[in-house]
Amino acid sequence: MIPQNVQKCIDACNECMKACEQCFSACLQEPDVGARVHCISMLRDCADICSLTAQYLARNSMSAKQICSLCASICEACAEHCSKFKDEHCKTCVEMCKKCAEVCRNMAA
Amino acid sequence: MIPQNVQKCIDACNECMKACEQCFSACLQEPDVGARVHCISMLRDCADICSLTAQYLARNSMSAKQICSLCASICEACAEHCSKFKDEHCKTCVEMCKKCAEVCRNMAA
Amino acid sequence: MIPQNVQKCIDACNECMKACEQCFSACLQEPDVGARVHCISMLRDCADICSLTAQYLARNSMSAKQICSLCASICEACAEHCSKFKDEHCKTCVEMCKKCAEVCRNMAA
Amino acid sequence: MIPQNVQKCIDACNECMKACEQCFSACLQEPDVGARVHCISMLRDCADICSLTAQYLARNSMSAKQICSLCASICEACAEHCSKFKDEHCKTCVEMCKKCAEVCRNMAA
Repeated sequence: MIPQNVQKCIDACNECMKACEQCFSACLQEPDVGARVHCISMLRDCADICSLTAQYLARNSMSAKQICSLCASICEACAEHCSKFKDEHCKTCVEMCKKCAEVCRNMAA
Repeated sequence: MIPQNVQKCIDACNECMKACEQCFSACLQEPDVGARVHCISMLRDCADICSLTAQYLARNSMSAKQICSLCASICEACAEHCSKFKDEHCKTCVEMCKKCAEVCRNMAA
Repeated sequence: MIPQNVQKCIDACNECMKACEQCFSACLQEPDVGARVHCISMLRDCADICSLTAQYLARNSMSAKQICSLCASICEACAEHCSKFKDEHCKTCVEMCKKCAEVCRNMAA
Repeated sequence: MIPQNVQKCIDACNECMKACEQCFSACLQEPDVGARVHCISMLRDCADICSLTAQYLARNSMSAKQICSLCASICEACAEHCSKFKDEHCKTCVEMCKKCAEVCRNMAA
């Protein structure tokens, strides 16, 4: 059985992955896409690391804490970039990134 | 907003990924690990394709239906391999693989 | 040992992944980024499936032919989208996508 | 254009991913598979992080140095686990892991 706190962290990573992928596609379609290049790049990185972190956690990897630490850093950077935009998809993404960062920081500790 | 049926498919993929990763690690530790080589290999493939399918779905990929079709096939093959073993982790995994296969088949249709 | 033809396919996938990731980042920085939304989306999908296909091939997966077939389709679609743009990075990417599609088609056969 | 040193790092990651995937499948088939559980788990983690690191590098990610640092750590741990076994596939894998770790450490610096 996956322990409760690990389960919670996997779910936070998966939710953050979803929010980032969605925000990525939505940002690409915004009229000011040219202003969102860094945000879009961060969203992609963030979705990818969240996805792999969820896999490491679910397999009870010996490197789970290490990848959680990296995931938290990237989520924090992504939240910062996304917070410059006020669309609903960006707001949701910031929220999910911050939550995932917090849960991953705890897991890494 | 991600439509309800897509959301359901993402969740099924993520649940299946979790069950496969867990079952993978558990099978590796079973005393009859030597008899589980094909099962372990399938579990790995299945976790990976479920993870990527969830990302394609969340980003509203133009190739979402195609990857769902492949994901369904791999989930079905994984369920078949896992169903040869009667541990709790294998039973759970078979259930999640079958559910994910069904939801992905519907999405691919 | 990985057979010669499998090795060649892994290399084509990795080269295509590189070209797609590079083209993705370059397209995002072009002044007409707003016209490249579909291309950028395809590039992301293509990089991801090439990367996973290389892993399936290297691990001698039982589903290698199936994922090669999907990879070929996505590479072909990506080549088509990229061929609308005449930058060097798009030209290189089209070339790599076509090559990868061909090698993957052969592997899937 | 991808700079020479980045190119070299991508190639090292891809070579290490291949060696780890191959060694993973080969270890699973060894008669003493039961003694290789930790090694097999590390090989899986290592292949996955090498694969994602290659993607981050190719897309010129803002978090490339950070993921290279994690990749180096995991490669080092994988080399240590693999070095306990004397098969050709393990020897090759140790070599590739050490090389990748070194190149990633330089990139992260």
